[in-house]
Amino acid sequence: MSAAGPPAPPEAAPLAVVLLSGGLDSTTVAAIAKAQGFRLLALTIDYNQRHRIELDAAARVAERVGVERHVVLPLDLRAFGGSALTADIAVPKANHGEPVQPGIPVTYVPARNTVFLSVALAWAEAAGARDLFIGVNALDFSGYPDCRPAFIHAFEAMANVATREGGFTVHTPLIAMTKADIVREAVTLGVDLSQTWSCYDPTPDGRPCGACDSCRLRAKGFAEAGVKDPAL
Amino acid sequence: MSAAGPPAPPEAAPLAVVLLSGGLDSTTVAAIAKAQGFRLLALTIDYNQRHRIELDAAARVAERVGVERHVVLPLDLRAFGGSALTADIAVPKANHGEPVQPGIPVTYVPARNTVFLSVALAWAEAAGARDLFIGVNALDFSGYPDCRPAFIHAFEAMANVATREGGFTVHTPLIAMTKADIVREAVTLGVDLSQTWSCYDPTPDGRPCGACDSCRLRAKGFAEAGVKDPAL
Repeated sequence: MSAAGPPAPPEAAPLAVVLLSGGLDSTTVAAIAKAQGFRLLALTIDYNQRHRIELDAAARVAERVGVERHVVLPLDLRAFGGSALTADIAVPKANHGEPVQPGIPVTYVPARNTVFLSVALAWAEAAGARDLFIGVNALDFSGYPDCRPAFIHAFEAMANVATREGGFTVHTPLIAMTKADIVREAVTLGVDLSQTWSCYDPTPDGRPCGACDSCRLRAKGFAEAGVKDPAL
Repeated sequence: MSAAGPPAPPEAAPLAVVLLSGGLDSTTVAAIAKAQGFRLLALTIDYNQRHRIELDAAARVAERVGVERHVVLPLDLRAFGGSALTADIAVPKANHGEPVQPGIPVTYVPARNTVFLSVALAWAEAAGARDLFIGVNALDFSGYPDCRPAFIHAFEAMANVATREGGFTVHTPLIAMTKADIVREAVTLGVDLSQTWSCYDPTPDGRPCGACDSCRLRAKGFAEAGVKDPAL
């Protein structure tokens, strides 16, 4: 894909692979990586997710942020199911403002971030990049095990014995931020949040449901940051 | 897929995900897992490899060994290249019996086993399996970093923080075997090696080249075991 948006960093800038779903978090991470001087290889996984509409958002965001190349890789996790995002299991909705459920919710997709980071690692090693960026967050999050610092550290350790030369770093700039912090950071960096997509369970006419975990966390972030969500 | 071949273990037997390329090693591993009493979920990755002919072998082997289900998952690593198996780079051939090259050869596919094991982990967690089997071998091998015990240990540690409950074991029954040991083990278990495929660089009419690393290691194994290769 062509590099639209802000002027591209010089050729000599290091390459990084950024996992880009097209949501608030990964879009902000892409902008952070760009601001840190990396040239970006953006990787979006088409895992046959319920909210495949996010793939369109990822394409728009990749163009706005400006990346060297954007790959949308089909990798059908629906073949295995086991999640409300990849099987015929209802996405839980908020009820009277109460938390949706305790524990790890059914929207958890088994080993999704492991798979995503592994593919990012494959691309990085092939392209000579040593930096991976992922928008995991362990504060205002859904409790997924593969968003926690312990997972990221273990993945990085594994990556460095899995490959020819090692030397990989998994960057998680959002990991200790609240959703409000993330919204503020995005605004500071001039990210066009109107192009992002977060909802797990779009309405038939392609709008956010407003009641799933992902919609609720997003709304909470914008509310606490005192910013109007431009995507609504 | 239906369970053909030997009688299936009883329903209560534990499930395992076995990575099955259709080669000598992974086929023997599937037979070992079966002999240990596991019901098998066989996973083959169609990574757009040069030797896509191995996908046919994997299907035949899955049927002969007898598995609960065989998934052939498209995951196009050619999108990233970086290997003789996924880009227009020639597969090195033996010359006068000399080793093809020192170091890690160009047939190494960046992070391939990391990606494969990650997808296996995703299936295992979704299916309630806790055991993964992979036919890596660190003795008569091509020097790939993701075939070494250190990688397997690091992957297992990562898997156990990446998932809901952890408890995963990555079984590598071949890791300390020579190719001759593997051939002997396959013969002992009654594996039909005529159905397996190892060559990286098939001839235009679909026969093994006989000169790539994989053909040479296979030939060495059969020769040292004193067994005629039934696939030739």
